[in-house]
Formats: sequence, structure tokens, C-alpha cells
Amino acid sequence: MVSKARTVTLLTDFGTRDHYIASMKGVLLAIDPELHIVDITHEVPKFDIRRAALLLANSAKFFPHGTIHVAVVDPGVGTSRRPIIIKTKNYYFVGPDNGVLSVAAAGDGVKHVYQIREDGSYVLQRRSSTFAGRDVFAPVAAHIAKGVPLEMLGEVIKSFKRIRIGEPKRFGNRIDGDVLLIDAFGNIVTNIGDELIEDLEPGQRILVNVGGKLLRVPFLKTYGDVERGKPLALVGSTGLLEIGLNQGSISCLLRNVKEGSRVSIQYSRK
Amino acid sequence: MVSKARTVTLLTDFGTRDHYIASMKGVLLAIDPELHIVDITHEVPKFDIRRAALLLANSAKFFPHGTIHVAVVDPGVGTSRRPIIIKTKNYYFVGPDNGVLSVAAAGDGVKHVYQIREDGSYVLQRRSSTFAGRDVFAPVAAHIAKGVPLEMLGEVIKSFKRIRIGEPKRFGNRIDGDVLLIDAFGNIVTNIGDELIEDLEPGQRILVNVGGKLLRVPFLKTYGDVERGKPLALVGSTGLLEIGLNQGSISCLLRNVKEGSRVSIQYSRK
Amino acid sequence: MVSKARTVTLLTDFGTRDHYIASMKGVLLAIDPELHIVDITHEVPKFDIRRAALLLANSAKFFPHGTIHVAVVDPGVGTSRRPIIIKTKNYYFVGPDNGVLSVAAAGDGVKHVYQIREDGSYVLQRRSSTFAGRDVFAPVAAHIAKGVPLEMLGEVIKSFKRIRIGEPKRFGNRIDGDVLLIDAFGNIVTNIGDELIEDLEPGQRILVNVGGKLLRVPFLKTYGDVERGKPLALVGSTGLLEIGLNQGSISCLLRNVKEGSRVSIQYSRK
Repeated sequence: MVSKARTVTLLTDFGTRDHYIASMKGVLLAIDPELHIVDITHEVPKFDIRRAALLLANSAKFFPHGTIHVAVVDPGVGTSRRPIIIKTKNYYFVGPDNGVLSVAAAGDGVKHVYQIREDGSYVLQRRSSTFAGRDVFAPVAAHIAKGVPLEMLGEVIKSFKRIRIGEPKRFGNRIDGDVLLIDAFGNIVTNIGDELIEDLEPGQRILVNVGGKLLRVPFLKTYGDVERGKPLALVGSTGLLEIGLNQGSISCLLRNVKEGSRVSIQYSRK
Repeated sequence: MVSKARTVTLLTDFGTRDHYIASMKGVLLAIDPELHIVDITHEVPKFDIRRAALLLANSAKFFPHGTIHVAVVDPGVGTSRRPIIIKTKNYYFVGPDNGVLSVAAAGDGVKHVYQIREDGSYVLQRRSSTFAGRDVFAPVAAHIAKGVPLEMLGEVIKSFKRIRIGEPKRFGNRIDGDVLLIDAFGNIVTNIGDELIEDLEPGQRILVNVGGKLLRVPFLKTYGDVERGKPLALVGSTGLLEIGLNQGSISCLLRNVKEGSRVSIQYSRK
Repeated sequence: MVSKARTVTLLTDFGTRDHYIASMKGVLLAIDPELHIVDITHEVPKFDIRRAALLLANSAKFFPHGTIHVAVVDPGVGTSRRPIIIKTKNYYFVGPDNGVLSVAAAGDGVKHVYQIREDGSYVLQRRSSTFAGRDVFAPVAAHIAKGVPLEMLGEVIKSFKRIRIGEPKRFGNRIDGDVLLIDAFGNIVTNIGDELIEDLEPGQRILVNVGGKLLRVPFLKTYGDVERGKPLALVGSTGLLEIGLNQGSISCLLRNVKEGSRVSIQYSRK
């Protein structure tokens, strides 16, 4: 293995006000001081495996090949849930086997799955029952970065837990889908991909049914295509249909909309 | 270009709870895995170009020469606003041409300005209309770090948009200025520079008129020069007159004061 | 000194919305562009020296030997409080002499203490009275990383200020202690170490008296050992007795409990 910069990313629901993230980074750097550590986010709502899985899937693919992605949203820490490594075409994913790694890993093409040996020599020797991020996942990630073969870190297993992300469905003029994410701008990102709405033309109006409200909004290219405070639909940066306001938060207006809510759109097809 | 560590800083209004910042960092590292990436802040209030421009001006100058500063507060993303690079005496500034780069760039001495080619080979090939930070600014910054000449990244343009920061004015015993920033401690930082108040002596009392309130406070060296909870004026760490409380938040007391509010001080001159 | 990666950690109460942290990082990198900078946290409640000292003690020890830990919670900045370096067995601690470094330093074994020369050539030449983090502590840390001998940075002093952390006491079936930390999950971490409760067996019930409430909870290994929303006691990741809820926040239920509150437990001994 050539001596190249190695990146480890961290994604957790720990927040950044305690010592937890720093402890993980200390463990990583104590094993490999040359690591580049990048935070994806630590502000996942506590125990929200689904949101963490989606954020990982949206960002992991932009990192250099060989990056080791560690995701720890782990309500079952210390119980029988398995600690795993998923080797995909371009990346390594390390975390609990509760679905948090599953969307990103599947998206990159799964090669092999390993159950981490928790009594081995590649984890902290003095381990707690409540902080696998520091005691198991961080040291395993650092050892992957140093080139330790995955076979030394765990045993091959056949499958891993996947979380279910709904698929949108078309019924004539209507497409039914889900709210995938609501971002910090208040934009509502649906699971309706651009390939499903190829026949929708810029400037066309669509009817959106979400959170018990009906909105008629123009389908445009970008937020600035409407006046400030006005609603619109567009294909956002992840290639998915998104409902937003120019320089405002549409999710503040539509208070009943949550991640996972149903969303339905209608438009006249040529 | 010698192979030296290169720093890229990031300043946005994206927050850190979504996948946006991590996607930008992934793009940066995929192009140059040796980059050092430093967050200035991602907690600029949404679309607050003025505050972002001031934070950049306050911090950019402390970084090593050659640092590439990327600032993305970009309400006009995808519209006709131009993506630019400003080469200054010591730094590179990359972002939208909406003023966000202007205070820091002007402070360092502008050399050349380039409009980034958005259809070139130094940006992401699959681009969205809503996330220039990931698709344009991050890859351009990484290519600057790798030594790609700026002429390959864009075309020279004559000017760039500047935001207006008010100038304080003296009228006899009185100086009228603005509130530049209110920091997380609640300190009120004005635009009144230390050179304007050279004749003010430590211990002297000044009358401050801000947010519709009149305060008489001592002018001192540091917060600890008054009792806990007591107000004072001092020259803060950016060389500007600041109104604060020792171990308290004066902006919580003066609720009407906002960034941009007028502030006026008076003191007897010898 | 061999050219190895050097890590500097930063722990402050500055928050991350202003330019302060970035200014410190700029100063660090301008002196040593190869530094790895790791944030411990910047979300210490303003002026809470005690919490900062505990977070530093909990995380510093996981970092590679030779790491330089900079902690700046500094209500006395610019007054007579001394800026210091504590050299311990494995680390360097840099910050104000107000106790913030004391718990971590004592835990690692203090070797030497230095009072930083504030008029020397290893600090910023243009210094403010209010931002020692940028003007003194960051440049001193970077110079330590570059191998400047500590004798050049300051003068040996005999002692440093320590903060008092209460010791738990046993009275027959009862142990009286304090609430050390409440973490972002709402878990209540006490100062009762695992060695004090060696005779407590998994599954045994204990009576907890905290915040004016009496709780009877099982002592178990991990959160997932009880149903969601149910309380328990366990030895947490720092080796201390902790009271929590599975996938919930016990400190939201027990609103009167604060860091520093008294806590008392009782259980029948075999």
C-alpha cells in the first residue's frame, strides 16, 4: 500500500458539545497521525438512523476513492447488533449493522461484508459497553487506513441490515412519493428523481399535495427564478424534486410536513 | 510550484446538519487529497452576505499566504450572478460575485479578478443549478491548490461587486458609527477604529447611544477591568471600539440593537 | 526533532458562529502549515471553566503523545491571570492559569509548568487585550509544534491553579457524589467510579436520589438492556456511574438536576 493521504469521515448523532467526537478523533490519530478526518455531521437527530443513512449516501460518493466512512448512530450499542465493515467498489463503510451504512454502501456497489471482531487486537483493549464509536469503530477505521487486511479485522458475513427508502410511483398525471429530507434552509427534498419528471418543462405549473396542503407552484431551474419569498419546485442538487421558497423556508410555512411525510404531485403531460 | 501544504477555508450559510459541507469537502479532497480544509463558519444567518463578508475580512488575513478562501453565501445561485476568483496580494478568494468576498479582498489588495468558466473542465461535469459550492467553487479551489493557472479557470474581468460598510464620522465630541457585528458573547462591535479614538484615555467615561438607549460606561482595556455583569467600552481584538459586559451579554440587555444599527459615542476631549 | 505530523487540539467557549476560531487556526497554520488541528469543542457554556476542564480531561488522553492541547475559557483575559504551558508525561497543555488545564494535566502527570512570556517573539507582535487565544496561545502552540524549546517560550513556575472536583464518599449502603456532566443525550454522569461499585451486580436495583427526586432503577450494561424510554444506571464510557434512559433524555425528566448537583445512590450489599 502506497503512503498516500487517507481520509476518514465521521457521521454521528453525538452533537459537538461533549468530548465524544474528540475522543474518537484522538483514537484515530493515535493509530495513524497522518489521517485526514472530515466531519460529515454530528447533528443527526438522536437515534435517527434513516436521516443518517441518507446524509451518508448523499455525501460519501464525493470523497476520494479509498475513503473510510464511519457512521455511528447506534441506539443498540452494547447489545447483539453487529459491528460491521462494508467494502464497496470505492469505499469502506464502518459502523453498526442497523441500516445506517446501507443506503450509501448499496449505492456504491457492495463487495464484501465483515463482522468486526470485538475481542481482537485492532480495537481498544479497555472497552466500554456504551461507546463503540471510540472503542471499536475508530480504531478499526484507523487500521484500515494503515493497510491492515479486512480479514484481520473481522469475519466475512453474508448480509447486512438495510433500511427501506420508499420508491415513488406514477399514476397517469400524478406521482406519489415521500419527503426524503428537509434541509437547514427549509427546502423539502422528495424521493422523486429527475428521470421520473423528464417530461416536465421549466415554467410549467405543478400541483403539490403535502402535509395536508395543496400548493400550485412553478417548476423552475433555481430559487432566484421566483421573487423573494415565493414558492417553487425544482430539481435540487441531489437530482431529486424539491419544493422551496426563494430566500425563505417553506417547511416553516408547512408545519405538518416531516421527513417521511407523503408527497404527491400532479401536472399536465404533453 | 513546490509541493507544500495548501489550506482551503470554507465560509457558508449552509449550517452543519445536512450533507452540503461534507459534499464540498469530498470534492476538494477527491481533486487534492493533501489539502488542509479549515471551516471559518457555516453558521452565517441564511443569505446574510454582509455578515459573511465581515467574518471573512476578520479571519482571512491570519492564514498562511497562498491560502484559498471559499465563501458561499449565494442567494442568487444559478442566476446571472457571476462566479469569480479574486487574486489578492497574498490570497485567493473564490465565490459568487455578490459582495461576499469584497471586504476581505479589498483589505488584502486586489491584483486580478476572474470570471470562472462554468462549462470548463475544472468544474464538476454533472452540475446542479442550486449548489455551486459543490459543483463550481470547491473544484476550482482545489485546482488552484494544485497549481492550475488562473487563466485556465476563468477570464479576466475588470470589476467585482462591493458591499458598502459604513464609515464612522466625528463631529466635535461625538462620533457616529454603526454596529458592525454582535458576537456570540453578546459583545457589540462597532465600526469605530482605534485610530479615531486615540485621544480617549483608559478610565475615561463615554456616553454611548445605541438601540434607543443611553449608557455611560468606562473605557478600559479588558472585560475583567470591571466587576462581573458591569458594562464597559474597549478596543476589541479587531482594533474596533466594542461595548460589552464582563462575563455577560450586553446585547441581551439592549434588545433593539442589531448588526447595522447606528451607534453614537461622546466623550470630553482634552 | 523528526518531521512528524503534529496535532493541536482546541477547546473554547467561543462558539463557531464568529471569526474567532478561524483566526486562531489561521495563526496556527501560518506558523506551521503542516499542523493537524482538531476541535475538541467550542460549545462550552460561556465562562464554564469546570466543564471545559472535565471535557479536556475526558478526551486529551486519547490523542497521540506529543499532542498540544490548547484550552481557552478565559474570563480573566487581559488581567493578571497568567498564560501557561503545562508539560505533562505525554502532552503539552496551553491556556490561561485558571484551572481549565488542571484536571487533564494532573491526570497525565505534571512535569513542568511555564509562564508564557507575553512580550516575547513567539507571540503575535500586534496583540489585543481581549483575545489571548489568537495572540498568545495559538502562536505558542504552533511554536511548540515546530520544536521551539519550552524555555524559550516561558519561564518555569512552581505551581498552577487547580479546580476542585468533588470526591464521592461511601457510608455503608450509600454513596454520595456529584453530577459531573450531563451530556447531549441527557445522560447524567456522576463522579462515582466503577471501582467504588465493584460489588454492584448487573440486574441489581439501586435507589438514586438526585435533583430532589427518588428513582429506583436497574444497574445494567448498556442502554438497550431496558425498553425504550425506561431508566437505568450503568458504568458509562468514562468509567463512571451514569443514569440514563434508553433512547431518551433523563435530564429532561429531572429538570432540577444540573452539573454539580449532589447525587446519592443506595443498594443492598451482599
